[in-house]
Amino acid sequence: MKLLRVGTPGQERPALLDAGGALRDLTGLVADIDGTLLADAEALGRIRAAADVGALPVLDGAAPRIGPPLARIGKIVCIGLNYHDHARETGAEPPAEPVIFFKTPDTVVGPDDTVLIPRGSVKTDWEVELAVVVGRTARYLESAEAGLAHVAGYAVAHDVSEREFQIERGGTWDKGKNCETFNPLGPWLVTADEVPDPQALSLRLWVNGELKQDGTTAEQIFPVGEVVRYVSQFMTLYPGDVINTGTPAGVAMGRPEPKPYLRAGDVVELEVTGLGRQRQVLARA
Amino acid sequence: MKLLRVGTPGQERPALLDAGGALRDLTGLVADIDGTLLADAEALGRIRAAADVGALPVLDGAAPRIGPPLARIGKIVCIGLNYHDHARETGAEPPAEPVIFFKTPDTVVGPDDTVLIPRGSVKTDWEVELAVVVGRTARYLESAEAGLAHVAGYAVAHDVSEREFQIERGGTWDKGKNCETFNPLGPWLVTADEVPDPQALSLRLWVNGELKQDGTTAEQIFPVGEVVRYVSQFMTLYPGDVINTGTPAGVAMGRPEPKPYLRAGDVVELEVTGLGRQRQVLARA
Repeated sequence: MKLLRVGTPGQERPALLDAGGALRDLTGLVADIDGTLLADAEALGRIRAAADVGALPVLDGAAPRIGPPLARIGKIVCIGLNYHDHARETGAEPPAEPVIFFKTPDTVVGPDDTVLIPRGSVKTDWEVELAVVVGRTARYLESAEAGLAHVAGYAVAHDVSEREFQIERGGTWDKGKNCETFNPLGPWLVTADEVPDPQALSLRLWVNGELKQDGTTAEQIFPVGEVVRYVSQFMTLYPGDVINTGTPAGVAMGRPEPKPYLRAGDVVELEVTGLGRQRQVLARA
Repeated sequence: MKLLRVGTPGQERPALLDAGGALRDLTGLVADIDGTLLADAEALGRIRAAADVGALPVLDGAAPRIGPPLARIGKIVCIGLNYHDHARETGAEPPAEPVIFFKTPDTVVGPDDTVLIPRGSVKTDWEVELAVVVGRTARYLESAEAGLAHVAGYAVAHDVSEREFQIERGGTWDKGKNCETFNPLGPWLVTADEVPDPQALSLRLWVNGELKQDGTTAEQIFPVGEVVRYVSQFMTLYPGDVINTGTPAGVAMGRPEPKPYLRAGDVVELEVTGLGRQRQVLARA
């Protein structure tokens, strides 16, 4: 299923994109799309059954704004340098074990919302990523297979990054990863049954129509199941938590000088196979 | 005012500790103690007025469990190496600007709840801290005075830390800061009007009755108002966000070998002037 949330910011309602491309209203069936729903197999089954028999009302009216496909995100765990090609372009050794940092849930916006370049920023960069949404509480998992079994679904994430704040201002990467609007998510939360192999997805990102990132999750150093297993050794993952699993090569930081960092007015588009497409216009904070 | 939340985990109700040391029930007046309440001067005024005239019902029965004094925390920003004496003991240079890392809100437990030593941990360490609770949205603040004006109140925080996970496992400090139960908070959220000078507070921590940390916020490299101003340049702070402002000297990591890291059965007690006292028993996860 492709679950999404539509409406004005903070007032989104749950919806489903059906096989025919129509938006169906879920408000009669579930309160929202969040960790509580993802942990509730029965509620998910009710949505599936209603969708299968065409029983969900079509959302009429003009194309609505699409919000983030997940409400009440508990935490966003991010994996750094998780693609062989991206590690090479940044001049970093491939990490011996996953690198973890965080984005806070209040950085999340819809897939087509404006992204703000922070005041004082000269190195705002793009990163297309596969986001993993947790569906079951994961704590000290023992295998990558168990890791995959705790995944409820997938989404496109844009891990917007300010490289000066991230690397040159002391402390951890978190400083350059948590500016407002820095985590567009969606359009859809695609349930795991529709993603048979998360290691066979293409990720692409364009800036002003020019292809900048063209990668595949086959290049991930630590695949999705292993990432979930690993993270669960250091913290408990709960339904509705998100893991941004890293970006492939092609970011501005990895290019020759003058590096083409983002400016107000730039348009970034990104997509992951089967998970939909985002489009953001950059503006000044 | 000293606001708190009492009851079983996840079922806490809002309460107030009155000047006579009695617990007063706030459930008739406010839904909970969270960012929404802290941003609502009128609701806070109603609590104060009712407390002043003794109109709040006394919570009867045995001493209840005390939960974290704040519900629905949005994010917990942590400041690293923010005390001159702690920077010295770790062998680090005092940072030129604040070091930022995160704890996730799901690590928060009550002040006297059990703290779990993670599986595989051999370097679980203590850190008594002054926690700052944000009361107004803070974005690109221009002065430390404005920073202080955005603080709703203060609380004791225990920034439990696993040093091997934090420092020796690659990536950022976040990996050793976010194990479950790693952020006891409370007992009270003390409103800012009762803390006239946040740079004149004593912080103390004992392990099994032995005094280990005995510091003062006068040693903070970046004082509270400046921390809030600084953080607001990199991310937006919202009502109900928390900032853990760093720990003074005296942690296990700063001591001679064999360093006295925490073990199951150890008892940690900590307090900050006017903000109350915590007591945790350590157990294995």
